[in-house]
Order: sequence, then structure tokens, then C-alpha cells
Amino acid sequence: MDQDTFREQAHRAIEQIISYHSKLKTNELSVLPAVQPDYLRSLIPVSPPEKGQNPSEIQDDVESKIIPGLTHWQHPHFMAFFPANFSFPGLLGDMYSTAFTCAAFNWLCSPAVTELETIVMDWVAEMIGLDEAFRSTHSDGTTGTGGGVIQGSASEAVLTVMVAARERYLNSLVPEGADEDERWEIRGAAYGKLCVVISSEAHSCTEKAAMVLGIRVVKVAVDPDTLAISPLALKEKVKELKAKGWHPFFTTNTYGTTSTCAVDPFEEIEEALAEFPEVWKHVDAAYAGSFLVLPEFKPDAQKWKGYDSFDFNMHKALLVPFDCSCLFIRERKWLINALSLTPSYLRNPASESGRVIDYRDWQLPLGRRFRSLKIWFVVRTYGVEGLQRHMRRTLECGEYFSSLVRDRPDLFVVTVQERFGLTVIRVKPEEGGDVALGDRLTKEVARRVNEERNFFVTAAVSKGREIIRVVSGSENATKESMKVLFEDLVAKVGEVRKEITA
Amino acid sequence: MDQDTFREQAHRAIEQIISYHSKLKTNELSVLPAVQPDYLRSLIPVSPPEKGQNPSEIQDDVESKIIPGLTHWQHPHFMAFFPANFSFPGLLGDMYSTAFTCAAFNWLCSPAVTELETIVMDWVAEMIGLDEAFRSTHSDGTTGTGGGVIQGSASEAVLTVMVAARERYLNSLVPEGADEDERWEIRGAAYGKLCVVISSEAHSCTEKAAMVLGIRVVKVAVDPDTLAISPLALKEKVKELKAKGWHPFFTTNTYGTTSTCAVDPFEEIEEALAEFPEVWKHVDAAYAGSFLVLPEFKPDAQKWKGYDSFDFNMHKALLVPFDCSCLFIRERKWLINALSLTPSYLRNPASESGRVIDYRDWQLPLGRRFRSLKIWFVVRTYGVEGLQRHMRRTLECGEYFSSLVRDRPDLFVVTVQERFGLTVIRVKPEEGGDVALGDRLTKEVARRVNEERNFFVTAAVSKGREIIRVVSGSENATKESMKVLFEDLVAKVGEVRKEITA
Repeated sequence: MDQDTFREQAHRAIEQIISYHSKLKTNELSVLPAVQPDYLRSLIPVSPPEKGQNPSEIQDDVESKIIPGLTHWQHPHFMAFFPANFSFPGLLGDMYSTAFTCAAFNWLCSPAVTELETIVMDWVAEMIGLDEAFRSTHSDGTTGTGGGVIQGSASEAVLTVMVAARERYLNSLVPEGADEDERWEIRGAAYGKLCVVISSEAHSCTEKAAMVLGIRVVKVAVDPDTLAISPLALKEKVKELKAKGWHPFFTTNTYGTTSTCAVDPFEEIEEALAEFPEVWKHVDAAYAGSFLVLPEFKPDAQKWKGYDSFDFNMHKALLVPFDCSCLFIRERKWLINALSLTPSYLRNPASESGRVIDYRDWQLPLGRRFRSLKIWFVVRTYGVEGLQRHMRRTLECGEYFSSLVRDRPDLFVVTVQERFGLTVIRVKPEEGGDVALGDRLTKEVARRVNEERNFFVTAAVSKGREIIRVVSGSENATKESMKVLFEDLVAKVGEVRKEITA
Repeated sequence: MDQDTFREQAHRAIEQIISYHSKLKTNELSVLPAVQPDYLRSLIPVSPPEKGQNPSEIQDDVESKIIPGLTHWQHPHFMAFFPANFSFPGLLGDMYSTAFTCAAFNWLCSPAVTELETIVMDWVAEMIGLDEAFRSTHSDGTTGTGGGVIQGSASEAVLTVMVAARERYLNSLVPEGADEDERWEIRGAAYGKLCVVISSEAHSCTEKAAMVLGIRVVKVAVDPDTLAISPLALKEKVKELKAKGWHPFFTTNTYGTTSTCAVDPFEEIEEALAEFPEVWKHVDAAYAGSFLVLPEFKPDAQKWKGYDSFDFNMHKALLVPFDCSCLFIRERKWLINALSLTPSYLRNPASESGRVIDYRDWQLPLGRRFRSLKIWFVVRTYGVEGLQRHMRRTLECGEYFSSLVRDRPDLFVVTVQERFGLTVIRVKPEEGGDVALGDRLTKEVARRVNEERNFFVTAAVSKGREIIRVVSGSENATKESMKVLFEDLVAKVGEVRKEITA
């Protein structure tokens, strides 16, 4: 494709993108698509074209075949899961990143890629009030032993630190001077007894990381009111496991759980686990971490200053388009010890001097994209103030929605304290109805909402009961949309109560 | 950022991108940057801005602070590692992908993301001649039990299939009816004795995957001439390991090794390992897989039709910008068995019906980007013919360069058969010089080339000896550039031979 064709097509793409986002804002597109499984197969040839096609044909197909099959995460009526926010500045940053395509696995392979990442990750650490220990460069200019690295997702981040934690633990069992065979013997004997301890409310990514590593997960019950992990129960579980010959070596604690945005008591956990320094403590703040930019939440970050690692997704609430998970680690050496491997073709004087960071040793894959550019564009365009304004809107939309449902205690139960813009509700059965009926009503209301495709909410289970989760966090979120959803829910509860009775 | 500002900034970004690529073509920028470690720190504030900034300032900074710190992988003089190709159609595809930002972890979260991936991965399988078993939908329209999935990198791909292989193996040891404790007992006892067998020339990503999983790697020597693994040696090693109580369960064999583009004898390996069906056989064709679009290479793909998995990076030679690694698997159930985990908030009728693919169960992370769009744009814009033309150019540049060095046997030794556009050379010492002198000369010549920043080549070690790897695969690659590099090498060999003597 020559420059002129590219310019023309790129301009057209930009118009399509602008028009797409404006249609979302004005609700010209339903948040959920009307397609059935396999809708696309009949629309696209089964084989690749032999001859090159005119790019405008492909752009037409984006309009007619792809957009109708999208679930619109940027739609103001998208209130499911957690947001995955797009922003125009994020797209600009990403365009340069693709334009500069490189597989920047070490410093020399593109110094700017490494250095911008180090700098903006320190910006992010500052912005969300992380302890100095998590920064590559301290605020007084001295070099730290920790630092941040951009990962693709919270799943990748927790897997990465779990490997670091496992190696720290297993290697501590190997006596100095042991030879390679002895080393594998000792590690091997312990591996099958490794275990990870989390609360039953921790996100599935920790469980998946443990599955990937072939390690058993042990779950600790949560406080039935707060849905936060009990530090005492955690401590007792670790003790009990050790007594039985297991090796608990890792725990994930959560700042804003997925089901209900519960917050684990980090300081109490640290105290409870003080006698088990071998247990790596990881903070999963995937969604709620973005709220730390707000002054009222920022002090929370001090609560995990004794933790080993912390991760949150700027690609959820903080307007950096997917993928951009920000992992911070207290001691980079644990990552490097676990993940460094330098074959001859990756040797180079800069890396060998130890003066540069090679982020390939801070992550699972070798190659990496230039993801810090999108953070740089977003943070500079919005400024910290702009990001705060955005997070404030998310909170306010949530508060507004929850005030609406709380005003109708005849129809809804708000099951847990609203936090971080998330409201969790159940539909109340008419007098005399039991919880099982409440479950049926709740599930059916959620099903009907989603079936209509005008709103997308999450139907889930918490504490064994059906719930509906509502959170609206895109830049397009408005109180008006919350109001419309509320009215829709009220109407549907009416319908469903009539049809489904005890 | 409002629409008009976005339009204006996006247009400016497009002009900057066009101008950047045209400066690379005309060699106005040196392939390697002139910066020293930490160059960027003094150019960027230590803290994030409080107030939002004008996006044009950021764009100015891209020009003045970022581009000077880039290693230009798209430069015609970039001849190091393997290419990581950019293309304009790839950027267009990626722009839409970011614009449609979603975390499409299951079908419902954006049907188009899942369905386009299934279809284009079948296109890719067809294009490179993979066996039907690796397709989601066979060419007769029936549904297959295998299929393709886009991963971020070959590292991620090999890690993913190694987990599938490990689970297949470990679970085969657990008798039916065993309870959870027995299951962990049996798995635990075996885990420490698991091992992966590869050749000493396999890419480090397999070793890293094994490190991540805490599994030992055993290396088998290669044939000293071809640098391919010896099937007999592999078989003997597996036997020997089993006799010693180890559990060899995985091997990576390579189509185009990183150091020298050697090709392992797949059919002979399959035969040699026939008595060990528990050993998962993975093909790493990260770079050379792209050549399978050419008719003379396409039949090669039949050689691994008995393998369990195959991976190659369209983001290397095949013009899809990083990241885009295409993993194909013979039996998807092994991935799903190893990686599936469905918490309540991910339940939905489409997934529960089994009628849709949920790619989160085919990969390590939960969220995923819409990467098939960039494949779709690239394959349709170039057509198969255009992609073939591009790969042919890479081959021809390589053949041309290698004819030049072969014409100067007084200066250079071509150490292995040229393949897939890669030439591997050593500098010859003057008469009477030994291999150690050859090593010093080779290393020094490579160092000087890179130090001048006009070309970027890889200095590496193969068979214990210093080598220089040269491969030019970007769209901007030209025979003229190969000629200039050749002349430069000739001149530098002259200099270095004068300065360094036995």
C-alpha cells in the first residue's frame, strides 16, 4: 500500500471511528449485537483471496459485517463486568506504537520503548500513591530496587509474580552448594506440595495462574458481611497447611473484588502473616486501582506498602485502551532471578553493563509492544485532574443508580455496600416469597434486560445467591442512562413478579 | 478529547507516520539510535502533569524525544534478529481494533472478535498448507476438533501448549475414581520428574516456558553439519530419561532455528518417537513459517501433520504488526481441559450451549484484543499473491547477499546452508590464523558495524563459534542495501585484520 492510499484509507478509518463512537453516545446502536452464533461464517469467504483487494472494500465490510457483531463496551448502556475503556488519546498513542513496530525485548532493541516505560510507570506509581518501594526511581532521584512493568492483563501479571514467588520459595529450600541434580531433587519433592491461598472472592485469574503452574489452590472463606478475607482465617489456614506438609507460598488479596468490589484488610493480613515471610503477598486491584487517583482513595495505597507486588489495569477504568495492566514489584530481583535467560543472540554491551533494564526478564514472553506510549498520551492529554474527573463521574453514576434502587426497597435489595461505582442488587419477591424465589426473579430480570439488548448487565452468583451487578464506567457514561436502566428494571420486576410466583 | 480535536491530531499522526516510514526508506535516519542509556530521563518531567496538555505538544515530543531513541526495525538496514514487520494495512486493522476496544474473553463479549478469528485462522492454515486437523472448520465444511488461536508471541504459544501437554500427561497418571487428594498426591510425585527435551538449537522460548512451569529441560545435541536435531539421539534421550525415572512429556522441534534457520527432520522424529505417544510434539516455525505461503515450501507443512501443535509469527515476516503469533492445535480439548475455568460472572447461554468458541480457554490470560482484524486487513489487501511476492523478496535479498559473500572466500566463510533469507558468516583470518582469531575478527567486525549505526546485524555464537547473522525482511528491504552492507563488511574486515593479528 503506497503512502497516498494509506492516507486516504486512514482518513476514512478515522471518520468511521468517529462516527462509530458518536453512534454509541446517541444510542443509535444497541449495546448488545443481534447476531446468533456463527453469524459471520456465511458473510466471509472460506478461503483467503488470491489477489489483493481494494482496502475500501474491507472498510465497507467493517461497517456491514463486523460492527453488527460487536458487543459495544464503550456504549453508555454497557454496565456489565467492569469497563474496558477506550479513549481518543489512547488510540493516538497506539497508532504510533504500531507505526514504530518493533519487538523490543531488550534496551538496545529500542531504547525509547524501555525508557519511556520506566518513566511513565513511575508517573503512575506517583499518581496512585504507591509506596516508594514500588518505583524504579525514587522521588529523590535515587535508583530503586523495585519498579513497574506493563503486562497484557491482570492474569498475566499474577502468573508472572506467582512464578517469581515460587522460585523465591523453592530456591530457599535448596542448600548452598547443592549440585544441579540435588537442586531438582529438592525442588521436585516440594513442588507437588506447593499451594496458593486465596479468598473465595478472589478473581479467577489467580486460580488460573495456579492451574497453569500445576499448583493447588486453597480457598479461605470470607466475612459474610464484608465479603473480605478474614486475616485470622488466612493465618490459621496457612498454619494448618504447613502442619500437614504443604507449602503455602502465595496469596492474592483484592482491592475491589469482581463480584462485589469488596476490599481485603491488607494491614491486618500483613500482621497476621508476619510469621510467614515466605508467603508472597500480591494485591489485585485490577479494576478499583484506578480510583486511587482520587484524593479520598489515594491513602489506601499505603495499606499494602509491605506487600511484594501490586497490579491494576489502566485498561479498565483509566482510559488506556486494552491491553495495559500495570504491575509493580517491590524487589525486581525476584522477577529477574525467576525469568532471566540470555542466549547468545540477545547479548549486547548495554545489557551486559547492567546499566539498562531489559523488561523481557520482567515478563513471560520475549517480545513486547510499545505500550507505554498510550499511557503517555492518556495521562498527558487528560492530566491527573482529567483522570480524576473521569473517575469521579464513574463514582457519581454508581451513587446515583444506587440511590434510585435504595428508594425502592419494595422491589430491590442492595446486597453489599456500594463501592467504586458498582451496585449489586437482588430482586425482592413479593411478601411471603423466599430467597429461592428471589433467585429466580433476579435471574429472570437480568436475562430479560440482556435479551432486549438495550442494556448489558452481569448476572452472577455471590454468597450462593443470584445477583445483578451494575457498573457504568466508560467516558460515555451518564446519569441519564442509569435512570433509564432503573426504570427498565422496575418495569421488568413488575412483569416478572406477575409471571413467576411462589 | 472531542471529535474535531481527535480528527486533527489523528491526521497529524498519519502524516508523521508516513514521513517516518519514508525517512526509513531513504535512509535519512540511522537504523540504530545514537542515544546512551538513560537518555530520556532528562527530557521528560519526573511527575505526571496535573493539567491536561495540548495533544500537539505530545506529538512534537514523539518527533523530538521518542523517534531519536528508536531502533528502526522497519529500516532497510535492519538485518538483525528476525524482522518484525509493519505494514500500512496492518496499522489500519489495528486502528479499528483499538477503536472497538473490548476485553472479548468469550463469544458474547463480542461475537465478531471470536468469529473473525476462527475464520481468518482457517484462512492462514490454508494459506500455509497445514493439515486439515489443525483447522476449526475443515475444507468440506465439517467442524474440526483442532483449530487456530492468536497468541501474543511464540513464547506465549509454547508456554500454553506445554501446559496442555503437561496436563494431558499428568492426568493420564491418575487412575479413574481417584479423589482430589489422591489426584494431587500422584501429580505431585510426578511433577518434579517432568522434563522437556529439545535440541541445543531450539529457541530460548521453550526453555523459558519450562522455567516458568518449574520443569527441567534436557538438551539433545544436533547434527554438526545441519544443526538439526538427530531423531535417534532424541529417541535415545527419551528412553534414557524414562529409565532413570524421569517423565519426558514435551519436545519442541524447529522449522528455521534462530541462530541458523536449521530445520529439524519432523517425519523422522515422529517415527522415532512413535513408541512414546505421551510426548507432545510442538513445531516452532516462528520465523520460517511465513515462507510456507510460497509453493516451493508449502509441502513442508505436511511433514508435521502428526504433530500436536504448530506455531508461527505473522508478526515476523508476514506483514502483520506485532503482536500476532498463530498457534494451531490438533485437539482443542487438551487446551480446554488444561485452561478452562468458568466463574459465575462469565456464565452465559451462548457459552453454555457449547455452540461457540470461548478463546479464553485457549490461552493463558482472560482478556484478549481483536487481533484477527489486522490479519484480515493484511491478507485481503495483499492477497496471497502479494504475500508471496513479499516473501520472495526476502528470499532474493538473502540469496543475493549470500552470493556476494561466497564470491569472497578469502574474507568470509558461510558457516551453514543459507535458508529463508538468512546468511550466517564468519570472518576468515589471513592465512595461518586459527579459529580463535576468526572469533575475534568476527566479533569485532560485527561490533564496528553496529557501532556505526548504519546497519544492525546480530553477533551470536553457533557451535561455540562467533558468527554474524544477516537477514533483511522488511517491506523496505532491497538488494542495494545488501550490497552496501557487503561493501561495508569487506572494508571492515580489511581494517580489523590489520589491527588484530595472531
